Amino acid sequence: MAQGPRPADPAAEIPSGATSVARPVVKVRGREACATEDQLTVEEPLEIRLAGQSLSVTMRTPGHDEELVAGLLHAERIVEGAADIDLIAHYPAPPDEPNLRNVINVLLKGSSRVARERLQRRVVTSSACGFCGRTTVEGILTESAPITSPLRVPLDLFYALEPALSAAQSTFEKTGGLHAAGLFDGEGRLLVLREDVGRHNAVDKIVGHMLLSHRLPLDRHILMVSGRAGFEIVQKALIARIPIVASVSAPSSLAAELARACDMTLVGFLRRGGLNIYAGAHRVAGADVEPPQWR
Amino acid sequence: MAQGPRPADPAAEIPSGATSVARPVVKVRGREACATEDQLTVEEPLEIRLAGQSLSVTMRTPGHDEELVAGLLHAERIVEGAADIDLIAHYPAPPDEPNLRNVINVLLKGSSRVARERLQRRVVTSSACGFCGRTTVEGILTESAPITSPLRVPLDLFYALEPALSAAQSTFEKTGGLHAAGLFDGEGRLLVLREDVGRHNAVDKIVGHMLLSHRLPLDRHILMVSGRAGFEIVQKALIARIPIVASVSAPSSLAAELARACDMTLVGFLRRGGLNIYAGAHRVAGADVEPPQWR
Repeated sequence: MAQGPRPADPAAEIPSGATSVARPVVKVRGREACATEDQLTVEEPLEIRLAGQSLSVTMRTPGHDEELVAGLLHAERIVEGAADIDLIAHYPAPPDEPNLRNVINVLLKGSSRVARERLQRRVVTSSACGFCGRTTVEGILTESAPITSPLRVPLDLFYALEPALSAAQSTFEKTGGLHAAGLFDGEGRLLVLREDVGRHNAVDKIVGHMLLSHRLPLDRHILMVSGRAGFEIVQKALIARIPIVASVSAPSSLAAELARACDMTLVGFLRRGGLNIYAGAHRVAGADVEPPQWR
Repeated sequence: MAQGPRPADPAAEIPSGATSVARPVVKVRGREACATEDQLTVEEPLEIRLAGQSLSVTMRTPGHDEELVAGLLHAERIVEGAADIDLIAHYPAPPDEPNLRNVINVLLKGSSRVARERLQRRVVTSSACGFCGRTTVEGILTESAPITSPLRVPLDLFYALEPALSAAQSTFEKTGGLHAAGLFDGEGRLLVLREDVGRHNAVDKIVGHMLLSHRLPLDRHILMVSGRAGFEIVQKALIARIPIVASVSAPSSLAAELARACDMTLVGFLRRGGLNIYAGAHRVAGADVEPPQWR
C-alpha cells in the first residue's frame, strides 16, 4: 500500500481486479486501542447491459466478471452454452470514467428482445441504487443526510452485545442455518431479535417491527448482526437512521466506505472481548482513536 | 415429530410460522453412518403483492412477514412510517390453497401506481421462479429433468474436499469476508475456485467459467461451497447438472427439498472428518443408508 496521503475517496484507489484492499481500522483488544490497517473484501456493484441497455445491477467482488455474467445467464436459462454468446466484455475505460470497470456489456446470438424479457422477469436484481462504485455511495448520500446522533457507548457495552444476541437466539442453536439481527437501545438492552435465512431479511424485519409500532427513527439505537456486514446492511441502517452497526465478522469495502461517508459507526469482529472499528470511532468511548487517514 | 409415514411432500407438513423443521438425514462420522433426523432452517418464497398485483418474490424464513414487508418498503423509501400503510396482511388461506401463506398483500395510502413504479425499479427481487413453496420446486422440475449421473464417490474423497478448498483460498485468509466455491472432478481434483462477497456469485462464476470453456454439462462434478447451502445454490447446480453439492454448513429446508426432488446428492456440515447427507446418499460409497422416510 502507498504510504503517502490518501485521496479523499478510498474507492478511487482500489486497483482494478483486486479482491481485497487495505483500509484504516481501530483494533481494540480489551481496553487497548490501536490505529492500524485491515484487509477488507472488495464489494462493488456490477451493472449488466444487454446490447448496451442497462438490465440489472448486482453487488459482487470484482474479477471474473465475464464468468459471473455467463453463469448468471445460464442459471436463468437465457444461454445454454458458449455458442449462444457473441460477446461479454467490459467497455474500454477512458481515464475520466474509471467506474466503467463496473459496467459489462453482453451481446447474444439471436434476439436480445426475447432475452431481455426473460431476464427482466427472472434475473436477480439488487436494490443498489445508482450505478458503479463511487456513484452508489454518492447517490445514497444525496438522498440521506449523514448520521448526527450523539449516541456514545463504552467498550464494555459493546462486549455485552454478542453474548446477549446469542443467548436470545433460538433456531440457530438447532440448525446452524440462520442469520440473526438484534436491535439494542443505548444502554445495551435488547429490544427486538429476528432470525432469517437472509441477513437482509432479519434487518428488514427489525426495522419493520419498529416502524409498525411507530418507533422510527432509530437514532439512539445499535444494530448487531451475526456474520458479515455488507453494503446493503449499512444502507438499510442508514435509512432507519441507526448510528451504530456492529457485526460478528468482517464488513465489505463498500460497507465501510458508506459508513464512513455518512458518519455511521461501523464495528466488526465483535467477539471475545475485542472489536474492530471501521468508521465513526468517536461513538465508542475509550477507543476514539480515529485513524488520521479517515478524515 | 410424528413417527408415522410421512406425506409425499415434506413441505406440506411444515407448520405455519415454524422457523425450523425436522428432516431425515444420514449422519456420518468417520466411517460410521446412521440414519436420523436433523433440524433445518425453513426457507420459503414470499410473494409480495401491491393492491393484489404481484410485485416481487423474496426467499425468507416464514414469520414476521408483515414486519419484513414494512421494513423492505421503508428501506426502499416507499413508506416513511406506519401512517403510510393501510394494510399489510396475508390472505385468509382456504384449505385447498395452503401456499397462500407465502403470499402477502400491501395496501398503501396514496397512489399505488407511484409506489409500484418506484418498487419495480428498486426492490430486491429474487430469481425464485414460480411462487409459493411447493410450486417453486414443482415449477423447477417441470423445466429440469432429475439428475441421473452415475457418479459415486467414497467418503475419504469427501473428507479431502474442504482442506483442498481452504488451501486454495487466498483472500479469505486476509479478510474473513469472502465466500468460496470450488468445482471438483469425480476424483476430487479441484478444477476451479472462485471467491466473492456473494455466495451465488461464486457459483455463477464457476459455472460461467466452465460454460465459456465449452465444458458444460457438469454431470461428473462436485460443487463445494463455504458456508450454507440455500435454495438458489441447489437450483443453480441443478441447471448446470451437477450431481453432488457439498457445503461446510447447513442447508435450508427448501434446498434439501429441491435436492431430494431432483435426486441430487446434498451434503452439509462437511468438516473435520464428518458430514451429513440430506439427499441422494446413494452417491456416497460407504454411507448409502438412505433414510426410509425419503422415498
